[in-house]
Amino acid sequence: MTSIWRFLIGPPLRAREVAKEQINPPEGLSALSLDALTSVAYGPEAILAVLVVAGAGALHLVLPVTVAIVVLLGLLVFSYRQVIDAYPGGGGAYAVSRANLGPAASRVAGASLIVDYTLTVAVSIAAGVGALTSAFPALGSFTVPICLGILAVITLLNLRGLGEAARAFLLPTMVFIAGLLAILAIGLLHPLAPGLARRGPPPHGTLTVGALLVLKAFSAGCSALTGVEAIANGVPLFRPPRTVQAKRTEMLLGVILGVMLLGLAVLADRWRIAPRSHQTVLSQVMAAAIGQNWAFYAMSITITLVLALAANTSFGGMPVLASLLARDSYLPRLFSLRDDRQVFASGIVTLAIMAAALLVAVQGNTLSLIPLYAIGVFTGFTLSQAGMVVHWWRTRPTRWRHRAIINGVGACATAVATIIFLITKFTAGAWIVVLAIPSLITLFVRIHRYYQRAGRALGLGAVPGRPQSRPTVVVVPVTGISRLTEHAIAQALSISPQVIAVTVVINDPRRAHELQDEWRHWNPGAPLRVLQTEFASAARPIVKFVNELYDSRDEQIIVLIPVLRPEKLRYSALHNHLDLVITTELRNHPNIILARVPMPLTLHG
Amino acid sequence: MTSIWRFLIGPPLRAREVAKEQINPPEGLSALSLDALTSVAYGPEAILAVLVVAGAGALHLVLPVTVAIVVLLGLLVFSYRQVIDAYPGGGGAYAVSRANLGPAASRVAGASLIVDYTLTVAVSIAAGVGALTSAFPALGSFTVPICLGILAVITLLNLRGLGEAARAFLLPTMVFIAGLLAILAIGLLHPLAPGLARRGPPPHGTLTVGALLVLKAFSAGCSALTGVEAIANGVPLFRPPRTVQAKRTEMLLGVILGVMLLGLAVLADRWRIAPRSHQTVLSQVMAAAIGQNWAFYAMSITITLVLALAANTSFGGMPVLASLLARDSYLPRLFSLRDDRQVFASGIVTLAIMAAALLVAVQGNTLSLIPLYAIGVFTGFTLSQAGMVVHWWRTRPTRWRHRAIINGVGACATAVATIIFLITKFTAGAWIVVLAIPSLITLFVRIHRYYQRAGRALGLGAVPGRPQSRPTVVVVPVTGISRLTEHAIAQALSISPQVIAVTVVINDPRRAHELQDEWRHWNPGAPLRVLQTEFASAARPIVKFVNELYDSRDEQIIVLIPVLRPEKLRYSALHNHLDLVITTELRNHPNIILARVPMPLTLHG
Repeated sequence: MTSIWRFLIGPPLRAREVAKEQINPPEGLSALSLDALTSVAYGPEAILAVLVVAGAGALHLVLPVTVAIVVLLGLLVFSYRQVIDAYPGGGGAYAVSRANLGPAASRVAGASLIVDYTLTVAVSIAAGVGALTSAFPALGSFTVPICLGILAVITLLNLRGLGEAARAFLLPTMVFIAGLLAILAIGLLHPLAPGLARRGPPPHGTLTVGALLVLKAFSAGCSALTGVEAIANGVPLFRPPRTVQAKRTEMLLGVILGVMLLGLAVLADRWRIAPRSHQTVLSQVMAAAIGQNWAFYAMSITITLVLALAANTSFGGMPVLASLLARDSYLPRLFSLRDDRQVFASGIVTLAIMAAALLVAVQGNTLSLIPLYAIGVFTGFTLSQAGMVVHWWRTRPTRWRHRAIINGVGACATAVATIIFLITKFTAGAWIVVLAIPSLITLFVRIHRYYQRAGRALGLGAVPGRPQSRPTVVVVPVTGISRLTEHAIAQALSISPQVIAVTVVINDPRRAHELQDEWRHWNPGAPLRVLQTEFASAARPIVKFVNELYDSRDEQIIVLIPVLRPEKLRYSALHNHLDLVITTELRNHPNIILARVPMPLTLHG
Repeated sequence: MTSIWRFLIGPPLRAREVAKEQINPPEGLSALSLDALTSVAYGPEAILAVLVVAGAGALHLVLPVTVAIVVLLGLLVFSYRQVIDAYPGGGGAYAVSRANLGPAASRVAGASLIVDYTLTVAVSIAAGVGALTSAFPALGSFTVPICLGILAVITLLNLRGLGEAARAFLLPTMVFIAGLLAILAIGLLHPLAPGLARRGPPPHGTLTVGALLVLKAFSAGCSALTGVEAIANGVPLFRPPRTVQAKRTEMLLGVILGVMLLGLAVLADRWRIAPRSHQTVLSQVMAAAIGQNWAFYAMSITITLVLALAANTSFGGMPVLASLLARDSYLPRLFSLRDDRQVFASGIVTLAIMAAALLVAVQGNTLSLIPLYAIGVFTGFTLSQAGMVVHWWRTRPTRWRHRAIINGVGACATAVATIIFLITKFTAGAWIVVLAIPSLITLFVRIHRYYQRAGRALGLGAVPGRPQSRPTVVVVPVTGISRLTEHAIAQALSISPQVIAVTVVINDPRRAHELQDEWRHWNPGAPLRVLQTEFASAARPIVKFVNELYDSRDEQIIVLIPVLRPEKLRYSALHNHLDLVITTELRNHPNIILARVPMPLTLHG
């Protein structure tokens, strides 16, 4: 087992062996922006899925709704370019709000982001598999296993530590961007696309569409904006001049994503594309633009791949966030420890388990996740931008008013969007997020309070008293007289002159006498206590004996369990049953030192 | 968890609290013969399933084949009445062949019986669920979950220990016997049964049926004879005079089972019943005899119940057999230990896991299991009877020749049957058994050889040398200075004056200096070794340090890991990460005593 695991995740790494990435804007797009870019695979779909409820005539609203979303995207891009300026060390919403808005706001940001990182993983993988099953419908019945398989691969890669591998993302990202832009261009240039089946004229008559529906479509489509913050979090990864490169990447992301969203909206509107259950909207647009040929299939597989890589973005973000929360005592310390591949394994595994649970719960269906999605990220956006306003006000660099206004508008716009999400998506599933975020915050607060109390109880920061030694009595459970017993008694006598061997005899007084006689004959320098019992288990009498000893004497008690270590580990199952039961029973005893003394067993002949 | 488990399986029991059953023949039928009696639910079905392959005209062969099986049943009953006489202490095939034929034969018997006990559980449960889904076809798609649910209930009941509950089997057993005999009587008395749909005349023309087909039908039908040995195994359970009561029960079983099998065969023949996929043959006969009324449904449920109870027979047999094998060093010792409900929990759980795997593998389909079934039991029959011949020849009581002849004929008949099984069922699945039994025997032999060598290496039976104590050095891994550190250093100093505290600093030389200064200022009476590392894990440097210490010094090394024990156990997850990694790494180290020193953590305010 251990060696298989080692093979999968690789040998331990020194801190300096971990590549410090030095990336340029195109690499920045592939390493930090895939989450945002790939949202074209589900964002337009989410808008149309809302609009279609009001009838086919409402579908043309996809264009104005998309324009609104792209305007918001522009706002966010400019806001985050300023975050990059202000926090070149990496300005996650948690760090920015902690520095400027205080611990309460930072906890809200932390909880929101954990929820959305998990959703990003689930949504990206589900959408990726959706792209695959749209192109290859036969795979449709294996949706959940394929989702979990991709998740497992991503998790393993992250447990290895991605290192140089992140650069391998560049090629599929570029194929994806170039391919999709080319497809959109073909679609826009040919009024009648090659793959398009002839459709009837648009439905006539007036159509009443409520404002609520438009807001719903808007909030569903805003799922396309998640991930635009990732570049600002990853500024330290860029090649110097860092902030310049990062800001350039952010702008590049904004332009490409905006063009893609608008292009898709125009084509979906022109070709009157409606959501279908077995083919995604993106897949329909592609099929209409270029036909279902080799290029269509190659692009479908590329989309699956980049969506899987987009899920990877969260694996970059959430474990780091969890480690920051753990360092601030909001999560168990374990999350702040790197494992021997220098990655935060606990965070990675926790994220994988939560995402797997989500994927199984919704059966790999992207649209079930969309109502839950984006609320957390937009809460983070709002807190981050609001924090930036405070930051500018506090530091007052040149043109601080101008900068504060940009971030202020960003904060307001994202706050309004968050409120729209809450209202329009509440009954469709957002209530889960509304419950989850405060639950996480409560967890943070309780863990924080516990650590503070435990720290006081442990006297952290104060110099403790001088350690006082006291007499020790060693209890050695034995099953008979053998070299193992000799070995264990010898170790016990090395620890203390006071040693008591104990053995349990089940319903057999004659055996008890025999044992005592044999022991006296051997005379190992420690008395044997034979415990008789009518119960079948040997653990109970030994635990009782140890407890009575603890109550009646003042010495420190050490229970020394003899354990055979055969050369081949699999033979251990043939010995050591006493160890198993006693260790289980005494493991949580608060006042006893439980020790296991191993004896290597070498077989001859 | 522990308390839920306790609730399910009950409090620990003293040996004398476990009811020593004192049963009479009717109770004997319910406790020991359900496996045999309930085989009417699949035996005739198995015969017809073979015959139908040769066409509807071959179905009338069910009668002669059943007569042959009933003759073999009579032989077995007389043979086992003699086993009861000779082994009133319970004469399982393993014990009889071990005493008379030697260890090699006993291993064959043990392996064969383990295979067949497992199959009995799977076949009985699958047939029980088959009876249920025949009556209630809507349940058909839940076959496997229902099978596993019944298996789980039986397993839990056996982990509790059945005790008095076995007597509760009496009522359903009597309802089953009386009900089925009544149904057969009704069917035999009315030439045109009420529930029988009119069928066409029998097909004309000559029919060539090969001898192989008849033998196949015979061997499939012999699955009805498994379980006739159980009474002889359970003689000590009977009320005195034990052997008289047990022999009477064996005879009763033979008569009832013989009548049921013949009755079913006559009716199946008369009504030309053919196997169907959604209704068992037994269910068809019942429906034809009395119609599909409340009595039919009540009887169907009763059959499910007694089949589930029949699976229970194996849970009585296999764990005891495993404990005997373990006592003879053929299986891990664990199987010979009773748990605190006085049951052989390891054997029960192992049997349940194997049966569950089988049920899942065949999707709860009884007919897939039949070809595998009965080979093991008939191997056991043969060895047991052959052993009896040797027994009579050795002991030579009055009329020993007469007795030896009866057992000899039994041995020959069952040996022939076993060979027929092997030939006719080999390609249909029996090869699995042919592989499984030698594999088990190889396992027995290897375990036995290992225990013998381990016993020699441990010097079992010899008086070992006098234990020699030697100096000890205690290594205490710490993370900083706190009351926990004080506590652990105090315990370490109680064990030995030689104590070394070690701590790991990851990539932070300044912190290393600080720690040394703080430690010197505290001056706890033991030096601190600060281990610096570029790896992220703290375990590796500590393991390396301990190994170097072991290589360079002659003292016994104890690694004493400080562990916090918060009042509420769930808070443990917030501490003790060092414990986790170090314990995992050092646990299997052959030369180091690993001890954990707990400190109760009480929080104030």
